[in-house]
Amino acid sequence: MNRRKFFKNGSLLTLGTTLLHPFSSIANNIPYDKSKKNKRAKNIIMIVSDGMSIGTLTMADLYLSRKTGKCSNWLQLYKDNKVNRALMDMASASSIVTDSAAASSSWGGGVRINNGALNVSKKGEEHVPIWQKFKQAGKKAGCVTTVPITHATPAGFCINSKSRNAQEKIAEKYLEQKFDVMMGGGDKYFSPEKRKDKKDMYQAFASYGYEVVKTRNEMFSASINKPVLGVFEDNGLPYSIDRDNNKDLFQKVPTLAEMTKKAIDNMKNHPNGFVLQVEAGKVDWAAHGNDIAGLIYDQVAHDEAIGVAMDFAAQDEQTLVIITTDHGNANPGVIYGKEANDNFDSIQEYRHTNEWILTGIGKETSVSQIKERVHYANNFALTDEEAKLLLSYYNNFKTEEGLYNPKHLPFKTLAEIQQRHNSVGWISMQHSADYVELAMYGPGSHLLKPFIKNTDLHYLMLEAAEVENKF
Amino acid sequence: MNRRKFFKNGSLLTLGTTLLHPFSSIANNIPYDKSKKNKRAKNIIMIVSDGMSIGTLTMADLYLSRKTGKCSNWLQLYKDNKVNRALMDMASASSIVTDSAAASSSWGGGVRINNGALNVSKKGEEHVPIWQKFKQAGKKAGCVTTVPITHATPAGFCINSKSRNAQEKIAEKYLEQKFDVMMGGGDKYFSPEKRKDKKDMYQAFASYGYEVVKTRNEMFSASINKPVLGVFEDNGLPYSIDRDNNKDLFQKVPTLAEMTKKAIDNMKNHPNGFVLQVEAGKVDWAAHGNDIAGLIYDQVAHDEAIGVAMDFAAQDEQTLVIITTDHGNANPGVIYGKEANDNFDSIQEYRHTNEWILTGIGKETSVSQIKERVHYANNFALTDEEAKLLLSYYNNFKTEEGLYNPKHLPFKTLAEIQQRHNSVGWISMQHSADYVELAMYGPGSHLLKPFIKNTDLHYLMLEAAEVENKF
Repeated sequence: MNRRKFFKNGSLLTLGTTLLHPFSSIANNIPYDKSKKNKRAKNIIMIVSDGMSIGTLTMADLYLSRKTGKCSNWLQLYKDNKVNRALMDMASASSIVTDSAAASSSWGGGVRINNGALNVSKKGEEHVPIWQKFKQAGKKAGCVTTVPITHATPAGFCINSKSRNAQEKIAEKYLEQKFDVMMGGGDKYFSPEKRKDKKDMYQAFASYGYEVVKTRNEMFSASINKPVLGVFEDNGLPYSIDRDNNKDLFQKVPTLAEMTKKAIDNMKNHPNGFVLQVEAGKVDWAAHGNDIAGLIYDQVAHDEAIGVAMDFAAQDEQTLVIITTDHGNANPGVIYGKEANDNFDSIQEYRHTNEWILTGIGKETSVSQIKERVHYANNFALTDEEAKLLLSYYNNFKTEEGLYNPKHLPFKTLAEIQQRHNSVGWISMQHSADYVELAMYGPGSHLLKPFIKNTDLHYLMLEAAEVENKF
Repeated sequence: MNRRKFFKNGSLLTLGTTLLHPFSSIANNIPYDKSKKNKRAKNIIMIVSDGMSIGTLTMADLYLSRKTGKCSNWLQLYKDNKVNRALMDMASASSIVTDSAAASSSWGGGVRINNGALNVSKKGEEHVPIWQKFKQAGKKAGCVTTVPITHATPAGFCINSKSRNAQEKIAEKYLEQKFDVMMGGGDKYFSPEKRKDKKDMYQAFASYGYEVVKTRNEMFSASINKPVLGVFEDNGLPYSIDRDNNKDLFQKVPTLAEMTKKAIDNMKNHPNGFVLQVEAGKVDWAAHGNDIAGLIYDQVAHDEAIGVAMDFAAQDEQTLVIITTDHGNANPGVIYGKEANDNFDSIQEYRHTNEWILTGIGKETSVSQIKERVHYANNFALTDEEAKLLLSYYNNFKTEEGLYNPKHLPFKTLAEIQQRHNSVGWISMQHSADYVELAMYGPGSHLLKPFIKNTDLHYLMLEAAEVENKF
């Protein structure tokens, strides 16, 4: 906390307001009054579903509506007419189809750069990341994600790096900037046993006054008076549906909504406000794997985080909530056909992701074991031919490529088999150029036009918070 | 024209306003003032791109932006902050994935019905179609489309039919209702030589005072003081890109924008206003064929029709313009990759659709002829193996299914080959469940919430026009 900045920015007034209206005394679910156009956003919560095509939003909403009778939090905001919306063009400097690093950098640095970099242009110019700007303005700043906390989307708001892949170095840069809450996966970039340089980043963070947490319960118990580093898995966190159906993972790993709640609790009493990025990063990984259970249930987890943010923002009335994605991925959709409803609803019976299915198969697995495994996970019967086809990949007859598929497992083949049972199709295992959905709630949301470039969002956030862009 | 209704609905005032502000005296491109919330919509123009996934809108906009430096009319409206927007749930009574008949009926009749029917429920209840309601209220009403004018989307606003396939009968029902401008394809449903019952529907329309036109020039010359029936092709009109590159078709067939202009000119002086549906019907057919040149160039043709409608509406100031689609189809998108920009831009060099390529191939075609044909149409070289693969379908080694593919031509195979050159992927050859994009300009547009059900649009149109729902 920078006390000089704090007073300089006139936060005493804000502090007074907070004390006069403690959260607990304000009723739940107060809609934000859209007419309050001139109010400043003290806080910003940006919630990103990484790699969410419009079909992903649709399917998560259909899944919830048909299973529970209640639609997603995201679309309920639309039905209640509480938000402003836009389509957003996420192109990078190098391509009409962005990667997550260039996408986050466009928001984070306000400049389009090439795919693969984080707030560093091709010529080497560094653009000051927006969470650093807000820190300079006296606010607390943090990120929570279901992928490594050093991954592209949080990193693009926080640091500069020529390459998104320098995740060990990114962990060090976070410490230099002293962000207030950083939680997600990525133990391999913090642990002395796993880092190439053997540095113990946990100890380094602790020595700077951080509370370091590695389990869900440790996170729940963490002080809200100290900055927090939370790292709960080696790489990405488990998919929501796999976590929910595994007692150990369930106890060890928090949900995105739980991390969001903890981050808000940690930062909400800061007199000069806070900024928080929340990322459902494995929606993107699931799309890369054409992994429908991963996709829908992690999108639902994202939606629960929206609920947490909105509960806070509706009471707080000084928080701009931004809900969006950084690019489409695989453009999944439910395909027309007589059985489309029943097929789509069969996903409600799924117990595990395709990742869980495929990483549990090996050369030694029998055809009947494969059939049993798929039946347990998806509640339908493979034919012998289908099981043999899957098995053939493990015997090195075939390989499949993919960004998050280093073992060349048959993700595409399994999705094609599943399509006959769940009616979901995919255009590829990669990002798409589709313009993306964006919604805003709260003070500053009136600044949004119906169509924006990704970089516009950088300046909108600064303007909404009335933070001067000195860089 | 119903004169009693006309006076009853207080249109003398409207008439006076029209005379005081003739269109020619008002400057072009006046933005609609969103604050004019209580103004009644005298006219409604609804412009539907049939089967437009968000990727189709994106690609047409990217195509125009990258080729001409100017984006689509649709998204320019967003950039200028002139419209209200929503996502719309297009599900039918029978499926989360609608067909065009149930989709148009949801708007047209205000009730969700099963796929395949037109404003008739499963139990046989008939819902009065909205263009009949507006005719009853004294307005003129019409439809223009690039598919048969008797096809599902126009028919859903106009008539009741247990089956969308009864297109000969639908032509007769149009005459009973005396719609004012009906133009598109579908000669086979009007011509005495082609109809099963040998009725001459052209003569029947002429005997009721219609001007019947069958070519572009006849349409241009048609009186604006008589109702018009325009039928320019046996079935659907040619795809825009095929028409533009064929002198005969170019002279014979009008564009969607030209039909839109003619329809507006015919109806705009009616003192009690008009309603017009404009459909880019072959965007859907192109998606069913995974036919990228058909898709993008017909979406551009749709966009030109938006331009015509907006030119009128911006001057008129009494016209609600609704721009949307009835469902996604095939969820196409540009896929990530180093060559994505160049590959996507190569579509600018295309001369013809895949339909043109494939219908020009037969058993007797040689491998080198196929390669020549594809190179002429798409400006890339097939391998011998690819050409042989395409040829194999004509020798009955293989067949491909598809809604608009009665000859079982290899549309899917050709799209897969093209993908390596243009980076465009498709999830299927069928409709998708994706929630769809909807925009409104002008009086009544303030009634739109950010998320609606398809049936809401029926009541919104009546409310915007202040037409009582007596049925």
